[in-house]
Amino acid sequence: MVAVVGGGQLARMMAPAATALGVHLRVLVESPTSSAAQVVVDAPVGAASDASAVAAVTVGADVLTFEHEHVPFALLDRLAADGVAVRPDTHALVHAQDKIVMRRRLTELGVPCPRWVPLETPADLTAFLAEHGEAVVKTARGGYDGKGVRVVRSADEVADWFAAAADGGVPLLAEERVPFARELAVLVARRPSGEVRTWPVVESIQRDGVCSEVVAPAPDLDPALAAQAVDVAVRVADGLGVTGVLAVELFEVDGRVVVNELAMRPHNSGHWTIDGAVTSQFEQHLRAVLDLPLGDTTPRARWTVMANVLGSSLTELTDALPALAAADPGAKVHLYGKEVRPGRKLGHVNVSGDDLADVRRRALAAAALLRGETPA
Amino acid sequence: MVAVVGGGQLARMMAPAATALGVHLRVLVESPTSSAAQVVVDAPVGAASDASAVAAVTVGADVLTFEHEHVPFALLDRLAADGVAVRPDTHALVHAQDKIVMRRRLTELGVPCPRWVPLETPADLTAFLAEHGEAVVKTARGGYDGKGVRVVRSADEVADWFAAAADGGVPLLAEERVPFARELAVLVARRPSGEVRTWPVVESIQRDGVCSEVVAPAPDLDPALAAQAVDVAVRVADGLGVTGVLAVELFEVDGRVVVNELAMRPHNSGHWTIDGAVTSQFEQHLRAVLDLPLGDTTPRARWTVMANVLGSSLTELTDALPALAAADPGAKVHLYGKEVRPGRKLGHVNVSGDDLADVRRRALAAAALLRGETPA
Repeated sequence: MVAVVGGGQLARMMAPAATALGVHLRVLVESPTSSAAQVVVDAPVGAASDASAVAAVTVGADVLTFEHEHVPFALLDRLAADGVAVRPDTHALVHAQDKIVMRRRLTELGVPCPRWVPLETPADLTAFLAEHGEAVVKTARGGYDGKGVRVVRSADEVADWFAAAADGGVPLLAEERVPFARELAVLVARRPSGEVRTWPVVESIQRDGVCSEVVAPAPDLDPALAAQAVDVAVRVADGLGVTGVLAVELFEVDGRVVVNELAMRPHNSGHWTIDGAVTSQFEQHLRAVLDLPLGDTTPRARWTVMANVLGSSLTELTDALPALAAADPGAKVHLYGKEVRPGRKLGHVNVSGDDLADVRRRALAAAALLRGETPA
Repeated sequence: MVAVVGGGQLARMMAPAATALGVHLRVLVESPTSSAAQVVVDAPVGAASDASAVAAVTVGADVLTFEHEHVPFALLDRLAADGVAVRPDTHALVHAQDKIVMRRRLTELGVPCPRWVPLETPADLTAFLAEHGEAVVKTARGGYDGKGVRVVRSADEVADWFAAAADGGVPLLAEERVPFARELAVLVARRPSGEVRTWPVVESIQRDGVCSEVVAPAPDLDPALAAQAVDVAVRVADGLGVTGVLAVELFEVDGRVVVNELAMRPHNSGHWTIDGAVTSQFEQHLRAVLDLPLGDTTPRARWTVMANVLGSSLTELTDALPALAAADPGAKVHLYGKEVRPGRKLGHVNVSGDDLADVRRRALAAAALLRGETPA
């Protein structure tokens, strides 16, 4: 049995993989209507911060894993001390939870990063700005999908964050703004025994700081750079002792890659694998945390494009299914069962084929229908 | 919402498809530990023969469908009269439930069948045997996986069945024993609006009357014969007014095909589609009964072989996963969560690739591991 903390779409999409493998899945969900609670039979309701709720989901489980990084570490360390297999463990997980810890460790490992400094005071930022002109200021913890990130030219622009940090809030760091050509991502899975497998490097296209589209594999990527990106991801997975799936988000800049962000769980940049690879990231995550030999990551098609559905003018996305199915019999729809809110990740569509332009057009058209747009 | 009668592996494998489409699935299961009950949140327990239980699962559902044909028709007709969309309806379903009705109707439609007669008395069988030497005697209803079928050379060999039939039991029919070269199957999906899609013709390999292996597409099949097989399947689907997935099992004999059996639901001969086709039979069945446009049935690979796991010396099939995953990272395992019994269908494995001999070898080896056999 695999116990998962968090009842969003990532836990939801683990369910079909668990069903096929005959593995019992138990998910600690935020509410009885959570995305995962709709499709997982064993889905107790409780908060990730509730020690007794988290402890309860581990009873009888072979392993405890996560679909987000927001679980108190003291709680996880206590469970680990009691013999629960926590994967990834807190020694690894801290790097996905705290960007200062992550940058420090990646720098130690010699993994290419943007130039960066931890910010104790506004003066630290002013000094960094003097050198770089502008800076990407981030809260070390709690940010996601563009939240907790500001591009600034003056320390005044994050005065509120400094005040909060001084008040015992979240520490800050500054990173150089990398003039990247595009964003790439490498998904890697690693077992406790050390076996590692990667999927092909993908290109991730963001809109307003949120991933809107993923192209697998990344088009026109120099094979040497692809090898470098994969090498970086494997070094991070090994160096941090990750177990499960790790997403390494990268900037491609001047013929090299630098690490942007890490996520230690199945990730939006890997949703294409459900239909586009022999082994999906969700099946692979289950295999990895169960310490089963990892699955084949070979693509099933020359190209697969994943298009996110971010918000919708529809109340029920399923209302778009007749038009979508009529327009594109080969589009693979994945809906999350979430209530519609502006910009919210409500689902995604995968399309595979030989002609990249056609595959992209189809994926974007299908996602547009799910957003409630009518074709021109 | 789709309501399904029957909680076996066919309903279980509808669950991932429903999850992806964002369609609520409700399954009437035989017991809380049924295969489907393990992975479907909304799974009331009740018998398919219990009118109130079946009526209850239809409340709020867009459509009622089935994973087996053993539902009293009076009950379904009453629900249909009350406005419930029953798909397939009893006018179609009767042909999958009663082999005499099926043979009569297929003969009317001009669909090629083995020579056959309904058997009122032993004398009818003796007359049929005088002409054909031997006969395949079948109970008109209730048979599956080789049960309810006897090959005989004398009416005495089914004296017990005649006695039961005379006593108000199940009627009998005799069919000629077709000297077939091999068994083929065509899977077809049909919507209420009439749209029909087929997957490629497959070869089905039986052991002791039970499907043990399916090769998709059927190797070395004459294209004209493949077209004939598809034409037969579509004529049956249209002629019987089937909605949902229909499996047409065929004998290949002397360069032509004759219909062996029908199943009006997802079928073992279509399990390869989960990994081997753009749209699986389970997603397609949901689309069809919801009257959604049907999905693309194109294969994802040149060859896909499905190997059934029939019985096992293991108590828990998941115990074989470490060895299986190590031996074949690309084998796709589908376990049904069923208690092990001799010869029982416990799961299947799909393997895809370019080299048929290699794909078959891998699928059979993986299934052997799940049966508890150790590699030679």
